Amino acid sequence: MFQLPDNELIIALRHILGDAHVLTSDLEPYGSDYTEDFYFPPAIVVVPADALQISEVLALCNSRNIPVYTRGAGTGLSGGALPVLPGVVLLTKRLNRILQIDLDNFQAIVEPGVINEDFRNAVEELGLFYPPDPASKGSCSLGGNIAHGSGGPKAVKYGTTRDYVLNLEVVLPDGNIIWTGANTVKNSTGLNLTQLMVGSEGLLGVVTKIVFRLIAKPKFDQLFLIPFAEAEDAAKTVNEVLLSGVTPSSLELMESSGVDISSKATQTPFPMRKDATFYMLLELDGDDAAKLFEDAERLLPVLEKCGALDVLHADSADLKEQWWKVRRSIGETVKSASVYKEEDTVVPRAALPELLKAVKEIGTRYGFDSVCYGHAGDGNLHVNILKNNLSDEAWQQDVPKGIREIFEVCKRLGGTISGEHGVGLVQAEYLDIVFSESHMKLMRGIKNTFDPKKILNPGKWL
Amino acid sequence: MFQLPDNELIIALRHILGDAHVLTSDLEPYGSDYTEDFYFPPAIVVVPADALQISEVLALCNSRNIPVYTRGAGTGLSGGALPVLPGVVLLTKRLNRILQIDLDNFQAIVEPGVINEDFRNAVEELGLFYPPDPASKGSCSLGGNIAHGSGGPKAVKYGTTRDYVLNLEVVLPDGNIIWTGANTVKNSTGLNLTQLMVGSEGLLGVVTKIVFRLIAKPKFDQLFLIPFAEAEDAAKTVNEVLLSGVTPSSLELMESSGVDISSKATQTPFPMRKDATFYMLLELDGDDAAKLFEDAERLLPVLEKCGALDVLHADSADLKEQWWKVRRSIGETVKSASVYKEEDTVVPRAALPELLKAVKEIGTRYGFDSVCYGHAGDGNLHVNILKNNLSDEAWQQDVPKGIREIFEVCKRLGGTISGEHGVGLVQAEYLDIVFSESHMKLMRGIKNTFDPKKILNPGKWL
Repeated sequence: MFQLPDNELIIALRHILGDAHVLTSDLEPYGSDYTEDFYFPPAIVVVPADALQISEVLALCNSRNIPVYTRGAGTGLSGGALPVLPGVVLLTKRLNRILQIDLDNFQAIVEPGVINEDFRNAVEELGLFYPPDPASKGSCSLGGNIAHGSGGPKAVKYGTTRDYVLNLEVVLPDGNIIWTGANTVKNSTGLNLTQLMVGSEGLLGVVTKIVFRLIAKPKFDQLFLIPFAEAEDAAKTVNEVLLSGVTPSSLELMESSGVDISSKATQTPFPMRKDATFYMLLELDGDDAAKLFEDAERLLPVLEKCGALDVLHADSADLKEQWWKVRRSIGETVKSASVYKEEDTVVPRAALPELLKAVKEIGTRYGFDSVCYGHAGDGNLHVNILKNNLSDEAWQQDVPKGIREIFEVCKRLGGTISGEHGVGLVQAEYLDIVFSESHMKLMRGIKNTFDPKKILNPGKWL
Repeated sequence: MFQLPDNELIIALRHILGDAHVLTSDLEPYGSDYTEDFYFPPAIVVVPADALQISEVLALCNSRNIPVYTRGAGTGLSGGALPVLPGVVLLTKRLNRILQIDLDNFQAIVEPGVINEDFRNAVEELGLFYPPDPASKGSCSLGGNIAHGSGGPKAVKYGTTRDYVLNLEVVLPDGNIIWTGANTVKNSTGLNLTQLMVGSEGLLGVVTKIVFRLIAKPKFDQLFLIPFAEAEDAAKTVNEVLLSGVTPSSLELMESSGVDISSKATQTPFPMRKDATFYMLLELDGDDAAKLFEDAERLLPVLEKCGALDVLHADSADLKEQWWKVRRSIGETVKSASVYKEEDTVVPRAALPELLKAVKEIGTRYGFDSVCYGHAGDGNLHVNILKNNLSDEAWQQDVPKGIREIFEVCKRLGGTISGEHGVGLVQAEYLDIVFSESHMKLMRGIKNTFDPKKILNPGKWL
């Protein structure tokens, strides 16, 4: 059904974009992302400059039945952008301008290729705040954040990418360009295509402009590190903290094995304790410095009651940066240490102890080690399953059965199989756990409406 | 294409629901809602008890090509639930249970027929808070709030209905029942059907259970009333307040003519001033009583600079209730005073002065009076256009042209034609202002996916 890219296509693309922006060699970097060991090198990479060029490229590929894979910064954790069929990889990196930061309306208009942290820094300089900060914030693009509905440590207080998107400019596969909504916080006009695009993983259209709402930058933050001897105590503490009436701006859990690997691999000091199995990072923020310490005082007895071994305060910017660096680097450093599979489990937060217990029990039964860490305040736990000494057979045959059991637990607890990484390639085989055939049919129908020739991101789950 | 309801259908419906829950006489009350003077009495009204019965009713009507109009409490302001074609009106009022309030996860599971205020009160008794409170909160249903993505005065700080919906149980026209998401704040699994359902106006399915997230109840609130001599000053003040760093929990504007009508019609005392053309209601809330007064102190010079004639404080619960009652009653009392059309304009908040000026200028040009009021902190301004002494011809021919001009201004300013009332019947003829044919095609395709025989809410805009 799809056509193979050929010379004629390359000529036509060069005509639209100029020779320099149609790449046909040294394309290996575009064949993988941050997901496991996947590798699917593309046939052609195009680097358009704007929505109009993207419109022409899509219309061309649509008319010729050529697959198109939109790619941001390539930091995805589910393989969502990988070109599994021969086609065109469309890079958004030249759409990298912050077009407007509107201080009157607390809004910004940006292009999808802007790096998350660059945007955060730009608005913070003006006293505003864009909260979503995935671990890859220094390298991931805002367009990728939209594609996967990315979260990050601040979601417990501030929500995810989704909560800041007001309006999107989208190029459809037929080349038409629409704005999905309006630049307003309230909008009850028509079906909500804006939120339908967020998390749609490049399957429905190509986002070319994003209107974000922003909030005022909190003036102060304080970071605390709390070691626990027992996994279950650490997990239970999450809910006790939130029920105390204090909502931290981050509430992260990290298994000590992951902390150890991250700290060593990044050569970052970290106050490891032999008797700790889990560490909690707890950040408070707000405009009233005294109130943050009052809140911390209020939390102390809660933490003690829950079995905290200690409560350490980051009393310098260096210490804050060190602890966050260790947290943010767990994913990549653990993955460097072994062949792995990463699952992005999510449950209602009070079910976290039960989920964690189930993960370990299932691991024991199937014989795999796991390192757990993540955004515990949202019930979002990343489970890195390590191959270590497992046989290839066990890794390929048995471990997926264990993963299926973990996801079934998530579903039973009211959760689902991806909190912020998306379905991509990794979660695709488990979708039947959470979606009935009737549900899948609706999603396929929506896909068909946007992309009747299925040229966008084909070979994935929709 | 549609079949007319007949005796055979009534017998089949009675078989599913029992005789008492299939009504065929005295159906006038179901022919109108709170929108203008629309009246479309239905042929049959059914009152199912649960999702399974609704599934059977929809499957039956779907197989027989019978229109189905889902109706909550009938307080809609766009005519969205009105049965414009002969068919079945499906009442949700027996699905009226609060099934669970989960104090661990700050979530609740409710049925769609629960009245907004009943739900708010139930969670507040447990120390939790469900912010969205439309003016009709005492009578509107949560299912109706979902259908229109309802807002209300608290949206400026807390967002709208949409921001509290985690997961929905939905019966599809073919009788299949799905859950759209998971009971988690984070979810990147599949296309976001939850947010697609919110605001879909009964066109895609029938919501039978809602999972809401809740927040902790703020302990204190303070209400201030600020009269202005000049409309433009009042409108400008909205943004100055928000830029001062204080985010009120409500920031409402009311034109004095509306306040006067409402106060008199409800026999509620209100400190009217002859020199005031607009009044602002400004509510602050939070957990720190002292901080609220500090914030108020901080706002005083801002308000004075902007031309406030006075700043009155509601120093008793009675006074608070009186001022809110006058605010909430403007809509219905103004409408009782004249034939009217109500528009639900919304723009980025800083554009409010320009919108207000345009509304008055357009009114002058077309010869109509208007009463403006609404949720100014969100840029959401309700414009009640009064017939008063206009001829029927001018009312029917000219006024819609004026409305079109107002909506075109909204669009030009980055806004849209409905902030919280929905499209329904009222906004349908103006959709071309905000949606291209390409955009409409996508929405039609989604409709077709969910409801291929178009039995849900036919005769409306999709």
